[in-house]
Amino acid sequence: MHSTALSIDAATLLGQLRSLGDIGTDAVAGGRTRLALTDADKEARDRLVHWMRELDLEVRIDRIGNIFGILPGAAGGEPREALMIGSHIDSVRNAGALDGCYGVLSGLAVARVYRAAGALPPRPLVVAAFTNEEGVRYQPDMMGSLVHAGGLALEAALDSRGIDGTRLGGELARIGYAGDMAPGTLVPREYLELHIEQGPILEAEGLEIGVVENLQGISWQKITVHGTANHAGTTPTRLRHDAGYAAAAIITFLREQVVAAAPETTLATTGSLRLEPDAINVIPRQASFTVDLRDPDDRRLQAAEQRLADFLPRIAEREGVRIETERLVRFEPVSFDAGLAGAIEASAKRLGLSHRRMTSGAGHDAQMMARIAPAAMIFVPSRGGISHNPREHTDDAQLIQGTQVLLDVVQQRMTAP
Amino acid sequence: MHSTALSIDAATLLGQLRSLGDIGTDAVAGGRTRLALTDADKEARDRLVHWMRELDLEVRIDRIGNIFGILPGAAGGEPREALMIGSHIDSVRNAGALDGCYGVLSGLAVARVYRAAGALPPRPLVVAAFTNEEGVRYQPDMMGSLVHAGGLALEAALDSRGIDGTRLGGELARIGYAGDMAPGTLVPREYLELHIEQGPILEAEGLEIGVVENLQGISWQKITVHGTANHAGTTPTRLRHDAGYAAAAIITFLREQVVAAAPETTLATTGSLRLEPDAINVIPRQASFTVDLRDPDDRRLQAAEQRLADFLPRIAEREGVRIETERLVRFEPVSFDAGLAGAIEASAKRLGLSHRRMTSGAGHDAQMMARIAPAAMIFVPSRGGISHNPREHTDDAQLIQGTQVLLDVVQQRMTAP
Repeated sequence: MHSTALSIDAATLLGQLRSLGDIGTDAVAGGRTRLALTDADKEARDRLVHWMRELDLEVRIDRIGNIFGILPGAAGGEPREALMIGSHIDSVRNAGALDGCYGVLSGLAVARVYRAAGALPPRPLVVAAFTNEEGVRYQPDMMGSLVHAGGLALEAALDSRGIDGTRLGGELARIGYAGDMAPGTLVPREYLELHIEQGPILEAEGLEIGVVENLQGISWQKITVHGTANHAGTTPTRLRHDAGYAAAAIITFLREQVVAAAPETTLATTGSLRLEPDAINVIPRQASFTVDLRDPDDRRLQAAEQRLADFLPRIAEREGVRIETERLVRFEPVSFDAGLAGAIEASAKRLGLSHRRMTSGAGHDAQMMARIAPAAMIFVPSRGGISHNPREHTDDAQLIQGTQVLLDVVQQRMTAP
Repeated sequence: MHSTALSIDAATLLGQLRSLGDIGTDAVAGGRTRLALTDADKEARDRLVHWMRELDLEVRIDRIGNIFGILPGAAGGEPREALMIGSHIDSVRNAGALDGCYGVLSGLAVARVYRAAGALPPRPLVVAAFTNEEGVRYQPDMMGSLVHAGGLALEAALDSRGIDGTRLGGELARIGYAGDMAPGTLVPREYLELHIEQGPILEAEGLEIGVVENLQGISWQKITVHGTANHAGTTPTRLRHDAGYAAAAIITFLREQVVAAAPETTLATTGSLRLEPDAINVIPRQASFTVDLRDPDDRRLQAAEQRLADFLPRIAEREGVRIETERLVRFEPVSFDAGLAGAIEASAKRLGLSHRRMTSGAGHDAQMMARIAPAAMIFVPSRGGISHNPREHTDDAQLIQGTQVLLDVVQQRMTAP
């Protein structure tokens, strides 16, 4: 097994992507919603497990509901000798069909190559689907892989309350996926995740493969500015405590001072903002908004956070407002395994695919797995950089190219010392 | 009748303010909601008419529902010889008890002085309550006085659709206030309006009376920025079309460039803002927000509008967004009558009350009446500058002082040539 280009069963992979994408379809044309541990998620899990069993994989489910399909190694082999390929099959609301599912089903495509050849890999191959990567219904996101990696206690995860008031553990049992394996049982020798980029870089540069060597640090805060509501026509500017203006000044500062300090790497986004009382002729009493800061380098991310933190008391003093901050999420940047990244790059090159090293801007299960095993990711282009949207799209040929790279890396690593 | 300080029946005035304020009280402690032409407005109108009849005023109601109570002049006198005192008794949601009602009921207090003395004024005195000053349920605001002044056709006003889908004309008839007098029948010789300041200036300067010599121009726009939604973690800053950042930059520009060009007079407020899709990790696709610009000088107001208009294509070009503007309201500044303003100042001085000339930041019926008659306004302090709020407050003593000034001005003008 050294020629891979002909070995991927493209029709089955693409068919399974369509099939999984048909579960939980929305009224809005083209979208689907499979929030974690809903009936739609159960249906997708059932279908995945069915496909794993078709490939005669050993299916194991742990207590947080992570699903593992194991192809044994030719020489048997301990789980810790396994190469794991993983991602997730839950979705956001009104999602595309590729985010997550592509990584899991490409793992099955790799296992299928071995089954079709009638040959087992030298070491075990595990295909994993982690619970609740999206974090829409239950917080935090990337939960299944986080619990698996020992970063969150199982009981805390099971006690997580959903936006619908449900308890995660209850819903997991209800849909029949509260397994009996202890989380973290299957710690592999290495972990690979194939994913759509969800960003515009590969498409913009006309490249086929992203060799993901690191993952940005993520800092989420909620900022609340407390000012004083007053009549827009009768309050002189010098007597105003305008929470809305202060918020605008902070958002402007983020772009013009914080991002500008490291424009190639630091990202700042305010995606959500509310004014109160939100009336045209009333100076806002309160503005609450989110700040999403990212950088692949933790010192730069800390510097960005510090620049923002230094500005807040200055604008509060100047405008006579009070500012509260609440940390929502803080993940340090992750450096993926240099050896695995090098192997991905070598495979892309060997297959004649254009490629570049890059940083993942989004969070992925791979960042949790990187805590316990060498890990790296492969990206394929996203048309228009669009994701979390029914218009999410990657050409079939690109999906197959990515899977060929995955297969090639697996084959190389399986025979590596 | 030359000594006025003892002549106002303070207890009746304050009692009537409390009585009117008890109509339409909210579940929220202290507030009341009497949107125009609702059952609560009808109840307040009925009470006002009852009080007018107690004073033996001739009550006339026009086709837009404006209520006039006429005290005849000693020599009879044509309506065009009348001095009119007016304001409104409708309210915003969860309002205070003084905005508008104070002006109308102080008019009754002045009429009561004449009735108590058993002497008619030389010329007719008219107390007016104009329909729908607040404009919460039906647009535009100041509607009754605008129709009265000929600035809006009666039929257009009657056809106005409420936020509850009702037609204004239908509601007016339903509550029994579709009168038969043609709007504009009673054009007085001069018009006075006594009002709470609704701003902080008199309180901040420790003054008792505001001599309102002009009223700011008001320019309301809705601005919509159309950008591109994208993943907050994967989209490089240079590839972003961030509608939220562009909105923040515009709001910041308003304060730092537009207001800064005329910091003593130009006011700019963004009271309402919405981002879409309003998610923490999604670059906003759309930002829509309001801009409220005011200045007492129309050239400066135009300059402010122009500075904003010039900035929009620059930020649109820089950020790759599309910006739409929609004009919502545009009222030119109003200069009140110099003679009346001088009379108010002289009365305040005569009564030993501290005072200053000032500009009204809010719109009032007086600005519409100024189109057809010499007009001016008297302000009393608002505690904390607060209005449109249950915490709206003016001390009883200040309310009486304002009414004494009103009475004194009326008495002076009644005997003026």
